[in-house]
Amino acid sequence: MNIILLSGGSGKRLWPLSNEIRSKQFIKIFRREDGSYESMVQRVYRQIKSVDAQATVTIATSRTQVSAIHNQLGDEVGISVEPCRRDTFPAITLATAYLVDVMHVDPSESVVVCPVDPYVEDDYFEALKALSAQADKGEANLVLMGIEPTYPSEKYGYILPESAGSVAMVRSFKEKPDAQAAAQYIAQGALWNGGVFACKPSYVLKKAHELMDFAGYDDLFARYDTLQKISFDYAVVEHEPKIQVVRFAGTWKDLGTWNTLTEAMEENIVGKGVLSDTCSGVHIVNEMDVPVLAMGLHDVVISASPEGILVSDKEQSSYIKPFVDGFEQQVMFAEKSWGSFRVIDVESRSLTIKVTLNAGHSMNYHSHQNRDEVWVVVSGRGRTLVDGVEQEVRTGDVIRMPAGCRHTVMAETELKLIEVQIGSDINVHDKQKHAMEREWRAEGQE
Amino acid sequence: MNIILLSGGSGKRLWPLSNEIRSKQFIKIFRREDGSYESMVQRVYRQIKSVDAQATVTIATSRTQVSAIHNQLGDEVGISVEPCRRDTFPAITLATAYLVDVMHVDPSESVVVCPVDPYVEDDYFEALKALSAQADKGEANLVLMGIEPTYPSEKYGYILPESAGSVAMVRSFKEKPDAQAAAQYIAQGALWNGGVFACKPSYVLKKAHELMDFAGYDDLFARYDTLQKISFDYAVVEHEPKIQVVRFAGTWKDLGTWNTLTEAMEENIVGKGVLSDTCSGVHIVNEMDVPVLAMGLHDVVISASPEGILVSDKEQSSYIKPFVDGFEQQVMFAEKSWGSFRVIDVESRSLTIKVTLNAGHSMNYHSHQNRDEVWVVVSGRGRTLVDGVEQEVRTGDVIRMPAGCRHTVMAETELKLIEVQIGSDINVHDKQKHAMEREWRAEGQE
Repeated sequence: MNIILLSGGSGKRLWPLSNEIRSKQFIKIFRREDGSYESMVQRVYRQIKSVDAQATVTIATSRTQVSAIHNQLGDEVGISVEPCRRDTFPAITLATAYLVDVMHVDPSESVVVCPVDPYVEDDYFEALKALSAQADKGEANLVLMGIEPTYPSEKYGYILPESAGSVAMVRSFKEKPDAQAAAQYIAQGALWNGGVFACKPSYVLKKAHELMDFAGYDDLFARYDTLQKISFDYAVVEHEPKIQVVRFAGTWKDLGTWNTLTEAMEENIVGKGVLSDTCSGVHIVNEMDVPVLAMGLHDVVISASPEGILVSDKEQSSYIKPFVDGFEQQVMFAEKSWGSFRVIDVESRSLTIKVTLNAGHSMNYHSHQNRDEVWVVVSGRGRTLVDGVEQEVRTGDVIRMPAGCRHTVMAETELKLIEVQIGSDINVHDKQKHAMEREWRAEGQE
Repeated sequence: MNIILLSGGSGKRLWPLSNEIRSKQFIKIFRREDGSYESMVQRVYRQIKSVDAQATVTIATSRTQVSAIHNQLGDEVGISVEPCRRDTFPAITLATAYLVDVMHVDPSESVVVCPVDPYVEDDYFEALKALSAQADKGEANLVLMGIEPTYPSEKYGYILPESAGSVAMVRSFKEKPDAQAAAQYIAQGALWNGGVFACKPSYVLKKAHELMDFAGYDDLFARYDTLQKISFDYAVVEHEPKIQVVRFAGTWKDLGTWNTLTEAMEENIVGKGVLSDTCSGVHIVNEMDVPVLAMGLHDVVISASPEGILVSDKEQSSYIKPFVDGFEQQVMFAEKSWGSFRVIDVESRSLTIKVTLNAGHSMNYHSHQNRDEVWVVVSGRGRTLVDGVEQEVRTGDVIRMPAGCRHTVMAETELKLIEVQIGSDINVHDKQKHAMEREWRAEGQE
């Protein structure tokens, strides 16, 4: 099975765990059997591989997510990187071209396209296989998954099939209706459209060539910023007469808000927290080192991260976005290709961060024009390169890097540093990359 | 007017703002007219001085609070330090002996004794003056303040006066009753006993000499740990036939729980926070640098500090103590005589703290046996003394102190340091004090 997972934007609706650079699909919130936690992408990827170990998985995403994907899924997964944000039609076309031209998938071998973030069980992936098999038959150009509705939701589009069988031709689509209309559609046998479909790559590429002029993946990638913003529904689905739908009646949850996300959590507390016995329906998701104590609350979600603290009635939590848009704040935590960092102190002329480098990784060789930096190694072993001089470092070592000094560090084991930045104008743009004066033995550098 | 303010224990009921070493009376939570915030002790002290600029104020407290009191009130206030915790009779006796022997107050000049933490207005202090004047008349040995009850509370003792006048002899006392009995007492004209009284120092000392053998303040201080734990009520009030009560009908609030504390707050938010318009009766007290967002909550208090995060229904907040007792946690924030510190990162073999030294202050000259330390100056100017070598330091400077190295720093301006402690056994007991090898120009050192 070939799968394209669409990994979308920043998701402020799950603030303070998601922010401009960390998306909800990377939050480790689901408990594994061994007691550790996995994120939405890790869960979905694990499920795909358990149903089809040979599946070719490609994630269509933006540049900002590449590090997080490699950190969480390893280097084997295919990533189709959108150079900039366009809509779903350019994104699906680019990922399809990647599959054919880079991954060498046969263009007549069907591919399944689905969002990366629904909360589903293994039967969903079995249904994807059925979808793929149906598309291979060639009875229709597109085969959609139709999810059996559990209530007259206003959040989804509806698919009206021509018959009640497990596979049927699509009669018509209905955009997100109000609850009353939704109930009528459901009475007529309508299904939710979860944005999941299968088709042949050759079909997507043919449709793309009708609208855009490009030679192949590389060419499409190069001119991606010139493409029109247009959705797959609008560009393709609405004009296609031969569409089939395959029914799916299993678990399917859209975890877009705290309300729905907490429904999918098996435990009420992730991280340090205590609920008094006068609490009911309360969830705590705490990324901080100190405890959260909740007393006498009902149907409330509490989440704390280095970005801030949310305490919300669960129903109300879906209205979070305008509040988060109003926070003007520097990013306090980020995952990078080489590890992660977290801001631990802010002064007017200094910034102190904790840097964690994964074993075998290093930063770019770089310098800053307007700030001095000091590293104190608080855990692990590695090697620094400072103005061309290489040095072994371990817990307790101190490295000083005045402004202009070129520097990097490579982690032999996991390496943790306290980095103090000193200067009157500390900002993320003050960073110059340099070529190294000597061969550097680090692996995994970028 | 002479006043003894009784400044009590740790107050876990206001966790996470109060903890083992920071008591509720030092939390800066009340807005001043200039927009800054003051604590309970600062508010009470300011109010006393505005009503009677000449008042002699002595705070009876434990050793752990001395630094916080000096930081918040300056060096002029008198402090009677209890060498260890006894009950109110030894504490009041020690403070009275301090007033007479150290502050040279005339033993026949009345003194007012009251708790440091009620939330009151200026009329309360006018009432204290009346109490003091009444005690000076010598019509009774003790003059109590009787607070006009606003509801049949079960939290207070009741005073039954012989008449309804503004000054009356006390007929009897009633210990904390149930609500029904309280209503009956109130119908009979009973008043709340807020633990406020005036009397002559000579009276307290006479009663003390009947129970204890001591020569004066110094002698009492020296043998304080041998004294019996006994309350002033039990030792004195219950046996005294000549007690008067003076009525007080003004504002008087006991701010012992989050519920009552938030009632006294003029604003719903102290620190960074946002309330959605679907919130009602919600208070946020946030000491962290990141925002708290509250949505769809009613009658809830949210408080965040380096110690943890509390989210509680206001009514329920009075049951907090057993939960806080259950937290096994190192102290994450403390005020010291020289400034304050805050833990910002914890690893198995390192601890990173931010140290703020007040201008003109320095630490003890000390060393650690089992840990190295590194200071990075992130703000201000000062001088370090390291193994006898003095050095000027300013923002950006790095000082390394291997285990065994003697060190201190003196702040010329307010000085902020990032201190990284490195070692396999980091604990607060690993600290040896040393005499200095040279004259040190620091003021305010302790």
